[in-house]
Amino acid sequence: MTAQLIDGTTAARELRTEVADGVRAFVADGGRPSGLATVLVGDDAASQVYVRSKQRACVEAGMVDHHRHLPGDVTQEQAGAVLDELAADPEVSGVLPQLPLPAHLDADALLARIPALKDVDGLTTESAGLLAQGRAGRQPCTPAGVVHLLDRTGVQLRGAEAVVVGRSVLVGRPMAQLLLQRDATVTLCHSRTRDLEEVCRRADVLVVAAGIPGLVGADAVKPGAVVVDVGIHRVEGGLTGDVDGQTAASVAGWLTPVPGGVGPMTIAVLLANTLQAARLQRAAHAG
Amino acid sequence: MTAQLIDGTTAARELRTEVADGVRAFVADGGRPSGLATVLVGDDAASQVYVRSKQRACVEAGMVDHHRHLPGDVTQEQAGAVLDELAADPEVSGVLPQLPLPAHLDADALLARIPALKDVDGLTTESAGLLAQGRAGRQPCTPAGVVHLLDRTGVQLRGAEAVVVGRSVLVGRPMAQLLLQRDATVTLCHSRTRDLEEVCRRADVLVVAAGIPGLVGADAVKPGAVVVDVGIHRVEGGLTGDVDGQTAASVAGWLTPVPGGVGPMTIAVLLANTLQAARLQRAAHAG
Repeated sequence: MTAQLIDGTTAARELRTEVADGVRAFVADGGRPSGLATVLVGDDAASQVYVRSKQRACVEAGMVDHHRHLPGDVTQEQAGAVLDELAADPEVSGVLPQLPLPAHLDADALLARIPALKDVDGLTTESAGLLAQGRAGRQPCTPAGVVHLLDRTGVQLRGAEAVVVGRSVLVGRPMAQLLLQRDATVTLCHSRTRDLEEVCRRADVLVVAAGIPGLVGADAVKPGAVVVDVGIHRVEGGLTGDVDGQTAASVAGWLTPVPGGVGPMTIAVLLANTLQAARLQRAAHAG
Repeated sequence: MTAQLIDGTTAARELRTEVADGVRAFVADGGRPSGLATVLVGDDAASQVYVRSKQRACVEAGMVDHHRHLPGDVTQEQAGAVLDELAADPEVSGVLPQLPLPAHLDADALLARIPALKDVDGLTTESAGLLAQGRAGRQPCTPAGVVHLLDRTGVQLRGAEAVVVGRSVLVGRPMAQLLLQRDATVTLCHSRTRDLEEVCRRADVLVVAAGIPGLVGADAVKPGAVVVDVGIHRVEGGLTGDVDGQTAASVAGWLTPVPGGVGPMTIAVLLANTLQAARLQRAAHAG
């Protein structure tokens, strides 16, 4: 068997077009133009690249870029004041600090200043709580993008055995919640899991977000499974994921490539979440 | 094999004694006597029984009973005002509305008025979010009581395969989080799980909280597994759980009885959470 690739680039382009259409319709309907405020603290090169792609995508979708760049030595108080201002600004639909924040800042306390309605990457404790309680809220972009890709394969999530590898707060844990919301039987694995390959081989749907290059190979894949690789690592000769794609492709039914799989979806979902936030804020304002 | 019984009655008595000692020490150290405010709305007989046991246990542990009983037709506004008052009252360490609340009330909106520090049954979205993010917070009493019982068996949770049956917001979901926190590989099953017996048979630790009498029998138990039965149902001839105890006991290594297993632990943990809340409130006040 050679796995079919799940084309995240195309999926992301389609979703971004859909969002752009939605933004136009929202404005035509009298809505205030949606705006995204990315917040970058300091000068980390990788973070700058990520944030710039978000800003660019935001403008391309017809939304307003409210980016803020704060110096690396900004105080907790100063950063908090900026977040409070963005939280209160009716022009700003979504607020997204680029993580990780510098170690001298209390990230949890800063994130807590973002109102749930503007928490477009589902970073806050309130958003995590809504997700854990199975209630409506903003969903973290990367796991929500994975669900979007899974749906493109036509795999039936209800009743499926889903295995998530990695329990990070930003990806693995919310990923498990979203798969549960779709009625999968969900297993969450991590560094303490005894026989990772055995557990992974049970999965009809396997999502790997461990942050370890090539952690999962063919021996950990059930024949025909849908395998989603959230990892992305720079190695000699290019980029690689948490899945050993070359061997896994011989067993899996579907596989996301790296790059061109999950990566592009994250930004597309961010835009979708921002438009959704703008709509909800208008409804809340009208209500 | 005949399973050893996990004696929840003894475990609960020991924990309650420990809490009573802790309350005495806290007061001797200048702490304000801890107080628990249970809130009962209406006259449901079962709820009255549950709430009275909590009140009684609270006084027995040396804490003050701040119980409030509201009429069944109380308005959202009136109920909210009572919760706000309890939230602000420095004599009240913990606030616990008895669920379910009558259908005419917006329970989520009422629970949101309880400050995280006084949320002694981990009911609020904020507590659920802290748990989902792996951060410190008040833990729901029943699942926390289950972990307490598991620890009494000496089972190694780290790396164990744990299976939770049932995904309720009050038990199943937080149970999975607590087992993950203890480094188990956790699978969450529910009504859509395809082959429940097969999934349960993988479990070194099996927690059943499905609300269906006798759902899990011997065929769903791995030989030697630790089986915890959260269910409690009134049937002809007495009480029974979600586990068919008679058959399961022939396969399991450890089993909680019904009654006398998980039930007594819930109140004991509630008292422990209330004392912990009083300590944290003093620290927050001093800080």
